[in-house]
Amino acid sequence: MGEFELIQRYFRPLSHNRGSEALVLGIGDDCAVQRIPQGRDLVFSIDTMVEGVHFPTRYAPEKLAWRALAAATSDLAAMGANPVCFTLALTLPEPGEPWLDAFAKGLATASKAFGIALAGGDTTRGALSLSIQVHGTVPCGEAITRSGAQGGDLVCVSGTLGDAAGALRYLDSEIGGSDVSALLDRYHHPVPRLELGEALIGVASAAIDVSDGLIADLGHILASSDVGAEVDVYRLPLSSALKRLAGERAVEFALHGGDDYELCVTLPPGKWDELDESVRSALTVIGRIEERAGLRASGTGQQELVNLSGFDHFRSVK
Amino acid sequence: MGEFELIQRYFRPLSHNRGSEALVLGIGDDCAVQRIPQGRDLVFSIDTMVEGVHFPTRYAPEKLAWRALAAATSDLAAMGANPVCFTLALTLPEPGEPWLDAFAKGLATASKAFGIALAGGDTTRGALSLSIQVHGTVPCGEAITRSGAQGGDLVCVSGTLGDAAGALRYLDSEIGGSDVSALLDRYHHPVPRLELGEALIGVASAAIDVSDGLIADLGHILASSDVGAEVDVYRLPLSSALKRLAGERAVEFALHGGDDYELCVTLPPGKWDELDESVRSALTVIGRIEERAGLRASGTGQQELVNLSGFDHFRSVK
Repeated sequence: MGEFELIQRYFRPLSHNRGSEALVLGIGDDCAVQRIPQGRDLVFSIDTMVEGVHFPTRYAPEKLAWRALAAATSDLAAMGANPVCFTLALTLPEPGEPWLDAFAKGLATASKAFGIALAGGDTTRGALSLSIQVHGTVPCGEAITRSGAQGGDLVCVSGTLGDAAGALRYLDSEIGGSDVSALLDRYHHPVPRLELGEALIGVASAAIDVSDGLIADLGHILASSDVGAEVDVYRLPLSSALKRLAGERAVEFALHGGDDYELCVTLPPGKWDELDESVRSALTVIGRIEERAGLRASGTGQQELVNLSGFDHFRSVK
Repeated sequence: MGEFELIQRYFRPLSHNRGSEALVLGIGDDCAVQRIPQGRDLVFSIDTMVEGVHFPTRYAPEKLAWRALAAATSDLAAMGANPVCFTLALTLPEPGEPWLDAFAKGLATASKAFGIALAGGDTTRGALSLSIQVHGTVPCGEAITRSGAQGGDLVCVSGTLGDAAGALRYLDSEIGGSDVSALLDRYHHPVPRLELGEALIGVASAAIDVSDGLIADLGHILASSDVGAEVDVYRLPLSSALKRLAGERAVEFALHGGDDYELCVTLPPGKWDELDESVRSALTVIGRIEERAGLRASGTGQQELVNLSGFDHFRSVK
């Protein structure tokens, strides 16, 4: 199968699944064309996943498609952006039809679930990897960055943390089969917090998605904002399944585990009270921003958490 | 070296080389933010280059950076777009400092030459490959597509064709050393036809950049526009160096050779006369669009050229 036929057959159908005027020209030309509504900024991010590094060898193609698009789209959620479209650069050893069928199916499902349309891409031959660039929009100047956190701000996270990492840790163990299955779904099918991100525009002083672990990602906010934070590790939101499975180690997964794609957000205390109940209930306050640099744990003898680092692609390869 | 340090050291400096208000937020957050001027559309394209497929193993990193950015930016030229910024997804086996130094230097040089600033990216570990997504803008609704060619339109190409392919063919031969060197520079340092592309907005009925060979790329215009064409192979623009080196085979390189990144453009004859002399002199008329499907050669007994195909990533791997 040629590159042209491959695109026609598997990917062109995906470019029409959003009845939007935003995508003026989709797949099939030298470039795609997007129209940005007046008063809005374009927000974009590119993410690469490599077989054996970011996902297991012979990973199910439907799951790969979902997870890759979710991980990329999660960066839009962290900026408070409304998703519009994405490009896919897919490198694969050979275009086996069952693999492509399943991959395209997974991509279509995720694309529909996240409301983001395929706008273009490139297919090449090589070791399996994919880069996805996502495009969204925010009101001009309103994108939530990592650099706006200020002393006194609350530190919040969405959902529960550590589930994906816990699932991978106990995958081959003989205990907690049903809990492992439940948690494993969080690894395979993360859901970017798009609605929550949009609701936090004008509210959050800073935000990031938790992809490398809370300590690493909150650390990026602290570094960019030139502040520190104290986090109460006993307030970390943990799922019942993770607590049953990991016991006291659950906190460790919540602090260091990536792949959950929840949001970590800072906001002034006054804004917390103004939030809709639906937004508040999606968040857990876990600590507070401080002027003093460093990340400290409260409730455990003030130990320093700052030197514990998360997943870094050039240090540890999964 | 960690991913964060690598980005800080090699790539962050590249995001500030364009004093533009277009890039609201560059490298270092979850997403970059671009402001699109009112009345303009965003034009974007992603391109992947894999070691051993699109460039030789152990290819010089400065040349790789230039060629990858040129190839990607050439797609903006084909749409008539003004370049703004790009993202880089770089996958490499290990972050050797000499390699990264040279790569970042080549990228900075090309970025400055093409007037396009680094906006963001991702670095991962794996087999060497890079995906570049370029962003440009055009006046709303004015992007030049592949689908607007009509019967009677002139078919034109810019510059000279076949040089890069000729250089590669004679690289290891014992003849024409200085000609090979001259042509080889076209392979290593292609220059996207950005000014020409912009000048063709409102003039060209269709355009494409010649990356896979004239026959393949003109073929895309014909398929998208649902027309045919007759091309006079004796009017193909050939460099003196290629003619000296390849003799009668020069035409073959011009028809099938990719990697020159010239533009192939169609336009109504009436528009030709309205063109500035500077634009006209950058183009050679090589044929005419016809209602009848297929690509035919004039001047050589009307032979059909249509079944000769160019480079396809899943058919032939360089």
